[in-house]
Amino acid sequence: MFEALLEPKTVAVIGASRTPGKVGYEILANLKDGGFGGSIVPVNPSADEVCGLKCYPDLESYGKKIDLAVIAIPTAAVRDAIDASITAGAGAIAVITAGFKEVGDAGMALEREIAQMCLSKGVRLLGPNCLGLINAHHRMNASFAKHMPLQGGISVVSQSGALCTAILDWAASRHLGLAKLVSVGNKADLSETDFLNALAEDDKTKVIVGYLESIGSGDEFMKAAENASSKKPVVVFKSGVTQAGGKAASSHTGSLAGADMAYGAAFSRSGIIRADTFESLFDYAMALAMQPLPKGNNVAIITNAGGPGIMAADAVELSGMKVCTLATASASALKSKLPSAASVGNPIDVLGDADPERYVMAVEAAQSDDSVDAIVVILTPQAMTKPVETAQAIAGCARNKKPILVSFMGGLDVSTGRDTLMSQNLPDYPSPERAIAALKAMSEYSEWLRRPPRILTRFLVNRRRVRRIINRHIRTEQFQMGEAYAKEVLSAYGFNVPLGGLAATADEAIEIALKVGLPVAMKIASPDIIHKSDIGGVKLNLDSEDAVRDAFDLMTMRIKERMPKARINGVYLEQMCKRGREIILGMTRDPQFGPMLMFGLGGIFVEVMKDVAFHIAPITNAEAMKMLESTKSFALLKGARGQARVDFDAVATGLQRISQLVTDFPEILEMDINPFIAGKPGEDSIAADARITLAGKLEQER
Amino acid sequence: MFEALLEPKTVAVIGASRTPGKVGYEILANLKDGGFGGSIVPVNPSADEVCGLKCYPDLESYGKKIDLAVIAIPTAAVRDAIDASITAGAGAIAVITAGFKEVGDAGMALEREIAQMCLSKGVRLLGPNCLGLINAHHRMNASFAKHMPLQGGISVVSQSGALCTAILDWAASRHLGLAKLVSVGNKADLSETDFLNALAEDDKTKVIVGYLESIGSGDEFMKAAENASSKKPVVVFKSGVTQAGGKAASSHTGSLAGADMAYGAAFSRSGIIRADTFESLFDYAMALAMQPLPKGNNVAIITNAGGPGIMAADAVELSGMKVCTLATASASALKSKLPSAASVGNPIDVLGDADPERYVMAVEAAQSDDSVDAIVVILTPQAMTKPVETAQAIAGCARNKKPILVSFMGGLDVSTGRDTLMSQNLPDYPSPERAIAALKAMSEYSEWLRRPPRILTRFLVNRRRVRRIINRHIRTEQFQMGEAYAKEVLSAYGFNVPLGGLAATADEAIEIALKVGLPVAMKIASPDIIHKSDIGGVKLNLDSEDAVRDAFDLMTMRIKERMPKARINGVYLEQMCKRGREIILGMTRDPQFGPMLMFGLGGIFVEVMKDVAFHIAPITNAEAMKMLESTKSFALLKGARGQARVDFDAVATGLQRISQLVTDFPEILEMDINPFIAGKPGEDSIAADARITLAGKLEQER
Repeated sequence: MFEALLEPKTVAVIGASRTPGKVGYEILANLKDGGFGGSIVPVNPSADEVCGLKCYPDLESYGKKIDLAVIAIPTAAVRDAIDASITAGAGAIAVITAGFKEVGDAGMALEREIAQMCLSKGVRLLGPNCLGLINAHHRMNASFAKHMPLQGGISVVSQSGALCTAILDWAASRHLGLAKLVSVGNKADLSETDFLNALAEDDKTKVIVGYLESIGSGDEFMKAAENASSKKPVVVFKSGVTQAGGKAASSHTGSLAGADMAYGAAFSRSGIIRADTFESLFDYAMALAMQPLPKGNNVAIITNAGGPGIMAADAVELSGMKVCTLATASASALKSKLPSAASVGNPIDVLGDADPERYVMAVEAAQSDDSVDAIVVILTPQAMTKPVETAQAIAGCARNKKPILVSFMGGLDVSTGRDTLMSQNLPDYPSPERAIAALKAMSEYSEWLRRPPRILTRFLVNRRRVRRIINRHIRTEQFQMGEAYAKEVLSAYGFNVPLGGLAATADEAIEIALKVGLPVAMKIASPDIIHKSDIGGVKLNLDSEDAVRDAFDLMTMRIKERMPKARINGVYLEQMCKRGREIILGMTRDPQFGPMLMFGLGGIFVEVMKDVAFHIAPITNAEAMKMLESTKSFALLKGARGQARVDFDAVATGLQRISQLVTDFPEILEMDINPFIAGKPGEDSIAADARITLAGKLEQER
Repeated sequence: MFEALLEPKTVAVIGASRTPGKVGYEILANLKDGGFGGSIVPVNPSADEVCGLKCYPDLESYGKKIDLAVIAIPTAAVRDAIDASITAGAGAIAVITAGFKEVGDAGMALEREIAQMCLSKGVRLLGPNCLGLINAHHRMNASFAKHMPLQGGISVVSQSGALCTAILDWAASRHLGLAKLVSVGNKADLSETDFLNALAEDDKTKVIVGYLESIGSGDEFMKAAENASSKKPVVVFKSGVTQAGGKAASSHTGSLAGADMAYGAAFSRSGIIRADTFESLFDYAMALAMQPLPKGNNVAIITNAGGPGIMAADAVELSGMKVCTLATASASALKSKLPSAASVGNPIDVLGDADPERYVMAVEAAQSDDSVDAIVVILTPQAMTKPVETAQAIAGCARNKKPILVSFMGGLDVSTGRDTLMSQNLPDYPSPERAIAALKAMSEYSEWLRRPPRILTRFLVNRRRVRRIINRHIRTEQFQMGEAYAKEVLSAYGFNVPLGGLAATADEAIEIALKVGLPVAMKIASPDIIHKSDIGGVKLNLDSEDAVRDAFDLMTMRIKERMPKARINGVYLEQMCKRGREIILGMTRDPQFGPMLMFGLGGIFVEVMKDVAFHIAPITNAEAMKMLESTKSFALLKGARGQARVDFDAVATGLQRISQLVTDFPEILEMDINPFIAGKPGEDSIAADARITLAGKLEQER
């Protein structure tokens, strides 16, 4: 399937034009000039020859089977061209033409139609509204971007065609090789997910680079991304990060989880290396394509100038990696070879008049030293500096066991040296900081690859009971599940909840109070009242029968007066919870990526400090612990500042139980356990209050 | 004085060499090749002619007055050369030679000696151990870096010579003009402060760029920086940010305030624009040198590609600026001129086939629209794109009332267009993100320029009383001032402190307790005990005479047993403080910049969340309010999350009173008010506990 698209033998260009500047001309010219080795079939009813190639009025006249059809004709004619291409045996079709989904409903309908035409015949469709595609190793430039890139290991999938042209132009200026470049356009059929899958298996692709504005199916994307990331690095720049936000949400979790949080959680779970800026996208990809991954975080810096060495050391420390010093033996061996004024500390300063040989000695020493995991080499163009020779010398001694990243700082004097570095697979950056940011990305990916196997704990739960509760709520259109039922659900999934019960009369209330033990808390139970305490619907610490009776009467009478239309199910009584560290555990269902679990310390920490962590369910114990550890306030759970250390294993288990619950029941749209009161180690933790929001209909159970 | 250095008529090169590659040769060649219009005097006892110029064995043989001597001879001969230069009437001397302070004590002594020689004759000394200096408008390259830069408005002061070579090389590759470039080397005499002062007055300098690793005198630096910043932008990259830290400190404030915090506080107070990376240093400087400052935060984005437009919008939002839309009138006027598929929202999308004219229409519309403060123009190289013509067209319509920053994305195809932009004073960046980061720096500087005048409040205080307390403590070598005295000091400076008194006996304790009113708190008073509660030295909420007597006896007896050597001054009794929001106010004296005030919410917020703000004293009310507002937890003081709103004016006043106290008494090294209990508006706020650390000797009062 992808062979017809990526490695076709015969490519038809439907809409081949004789007018330079027109898309149909440019594609044909690019195919021909790029040195495509297969057959090129220009199709144009009003030309006999285009670019020196015989031109056919239609595919029928050509008469033979084609593999790939590239369509660049007016929108109205596209449907017939697709029909003809399918008839001619095309395995894949790229529609360059615009004027589909992006222009409104009619275009959307046409787009659906052509996608369906292809789908029904098992033909894959790229676009519409795209730049086309390039396979450098197949010498095929089936796009209207004129730069045929050098052959290299980076493949690009982009949702912006214009960005592809900028990338190709930039890659040409830096002599950076690419493998495949695909502009996915409107993604009527083929999407980022398909190319993740295809490129994961592609031997020529060492690194996958993606520019995304949206993602089709979150689930499939994550699966494809995790699979691809396990085989090779995937670096993605996602734009549109600030635009989502602000969706109405009924839970804390929902209001804190923007779309960008979801992308972040999805990316980090599936091993995607996230680039935060356009420049970092290729900064990272270059290093990943050219150099081995670091095995640890110890970085040796080699420089011919003090200032840039300090900059680099700052950047390493700020990134969380370590500026390491050579082991004593290697340091003294190196010291004996370098001039006396040189420093073999870290940064290793080979001095302003360093020749290539001095750089080699330093690089060799760092490569041989077990305490070094990665090497950053800096050069400034001083009077005696030989950038080209130094580049060659470093390349000559590189052993490819540890990553070497380079920054030749400057402009004119270092430009040929920088080209030499790149041609020798030594990634070169305009500043030490950018080299180190790339190294950090490598280091994080390396850590992800070494992550422990994902083992999900399956807890013994009472699933049937929850099913009953949910069904009853949805049937009666009670989509906001009250506290009492929410706690039943939690209890069925193994959470400790305060003992309690629903009372319809004052006598029942006393009975329940005596059963669970005084003192008790009492809360009005009504599907119509969300903020109970605002309306006098909560009483705490009631410690006698009289107090319970008084509270029952006052509460029910008052609510009737204040909210005469509210349906009242009774009053919910429960044990007063003991004190402890208040935590919020929650879940909100992201439209793209599904259930996002949330953890944060109660109240101020969540709402003012926004100190929360998200993870896409399902979650393992190790991942839950990592969530906790990623917040600043985790220090408090560990017992900082004289706070009592709490049983954070119970918190991590709570997250896993929520994960199981929301995976089992897709009808649960949002939920908060707020507060989850975490006890000291050895004590019980308790879900003291909870709220669950249900979907409007029953879902197919998974 | 600076004229001799920066605009000399006669320059002597002492150590002029005939051997290319040698520093003494390169300087001479650079002076000559750079087109220096004054007299060049090579000095070398063993040559008659160097670089085609008559060479003198010594300055005496030259016989005429020189203005600037550039010395590049072995270290041992430098002293005599300086002597000779002074005799020859030099007003300034640049010592290129290394081997001084940086190599140890002997070098340090020699460096001091030559500095003193110059100082005593009123001659200014640049270096030693530097690259030299360049004045592009004077056509003088008195350095051993070979690139004579184009004439421009950016002046560079750098503590790293190697970095200067990289900067010059880079500037040459981007056709960026410079005014002056000075390598300050070891700063034996002339330092960053001197050049801040000089360049502030220099008409040719539009922007000052600094690379600093250390700063001599913090006070003078801040004064010079604030003065310079008021006249023109000063952009500084400070390296070595991670190395300080970890100094032992006895206060919270001290332990939280690293050296980098101090630099940050000093820079932001004096209007310095801080660059966090090497690339951003010139990214910012370019924009500031070429474009007017924005008057507000509303940014219009113009692009020929959707993807990069979204990137830019993200970057604007993340920076805190606003993506603005055109006013209805200008939008519809523009809409009528552009093709129908173009978008006049924001980003304004002029489409992939945009010609220069379309860019001009969009730029014109944004320039005329009052709702736009700044314009970012993006171009990607597509089939119909004309980068050079577009660059010229934008330059042609730029009105210089609002900043226009540009990103031509790509490599080869846009490179001439990028050069055109730069030559037309349109700053060009490789990515939209970098353009927007530069715009943000401009916007912050613009805000600093518009800041309200700094009016310090001088509170009526009892200064004499504090003087007595401090003198007594220092004379008796009690450098840790106990709570009781610290509160006396605070009280003298207008803080509310709990009523209290020191009791030597149980009877006295009861007497004090009855006077201040029960219940009381009791704390052991001993200069030797810092953590009182750890040793049973604190009792709270004592509400009867018996309880006070019991506590007094228990506490004094227990301490005698547990810390037999501790000197005990008695027991301090005071009113129990009412509850309120606990805040930490403090001060630590930075070795460079002096008293740094700190604000943070008590306990967890300071210690776990590190949510604190610093400001260098003295502080105005507006600055104190800004400090509060810069912390996340300020939301709590304002009454978020159902918390009681507190009187934050009292907190701001507290910071100003501390500012006055520590400015009045330089002997105060560190102090914490912890907690400062902030009341609700209308209630009193109170300094509930305090600690002051004094210097080992009395200081000259200011």
